[in-house]
Amino acid sequence: MAERTHFMELALWEARAAGERQEVPIGAVLVLDGRVIARSGNRTRELNDVTAHAEIAVIRMACEALGQERLPGADLYVTLEPCTMCAAAISFARIRRLYYGAQDPKGGAVESGVRFFSQPTCHHAPDVYSGLAESESADILRQFFRGKRLDD
Amino acid sequence: MAERTHFMELALWEARAAGERQEVPIGAVLVLDGRVIARSGNRTRELNDVTAHAEIAVIRMACEALGQERLPGADLYVTLEPCTMCAAAISFARIRRLYYGAQDPKGGAVESGVRFFSQPTCHHAPDVYSGLAESESADILRQFFRGKRLDD
Repeated sequence: MAERTHFMELALWEARAAGERQEVPIGAVLVLDGRVIARSGNRTRELNDVTAHAEIAVIRMACEALGQERLPGADLYVTLEPCTMCAAAISFARIRRLYYGAQDPKGGAVESGVRFFSQPTCHHAPDVYSGLAESESADILRQFFRGKRLDD
Repeated sequence: MAERTHFMELALWEARAAGERQEVPIGAVLVLDGRVIARSGNRTRELNDVTAHAEIAVIRMACEALGQERLPGADLYVTLEPCTMCAAAISFARIRRLYYGAQDPKGGAVESGVRFFSQPTCHHAPDVYSGLAESESADILRQFFRGKRLDD
């Protein structure tokens, strides 16, 4: 349990750092055998890449670092419920467990939206644990968008 | 119509080239203002990147080339019905029109599976035209997997 809290703290740190770079503040951490193998915030603006969500960023980094196309046995920590694109990427990468913070009824795809992991076209589903650091994850996003509105 | 056939021919060429590299043979072409701005086959094996489907490869290439995060007005040609991950990426990139060849009842997400573009969590949907070079697109995949089975 202390371990989960620690990895989620790292994901929150990445979310805050993303917000400081004017990215939507979402952070993710990939863990294999108790070790962090990749950590990243959202990088869509930095890379001009709509696919560079935090989850996909860490999956790409980890696969590159390990020289393999899939990550069986790896656990993903992310501050927000993954979207449809990321849920499918998590499935393709064969992630073992998914831990996430805040829910995203507008764009999420795990307990919201298309609920991808329960669909017949999903061929691998991770074990899902939601609600870790939920209010902190949501607060980071809320403060970011409140600040944006004040800037307008 | 001749233009659409031409772009789909390029996508088929990319699919075949992917197959020769032992990638699942799917190809995609991105067109803006009548010009090809990116073309690619599936690159998941080459890059050790489960997200490097042909559609995502061309979206990333085009965004990098144009220095922008989205591709409004761009049309995507792809030989197979996009999967859940790619359908969401197509939506995020604000692709105008999607043309595709064969249907994919097992993994597709446009007219099969989660039918992402009709969902409330999809905030931009392209116009969809399916069935272009359908049998040729399907044949390339069928021959590839038949060859694989014979190799086993």
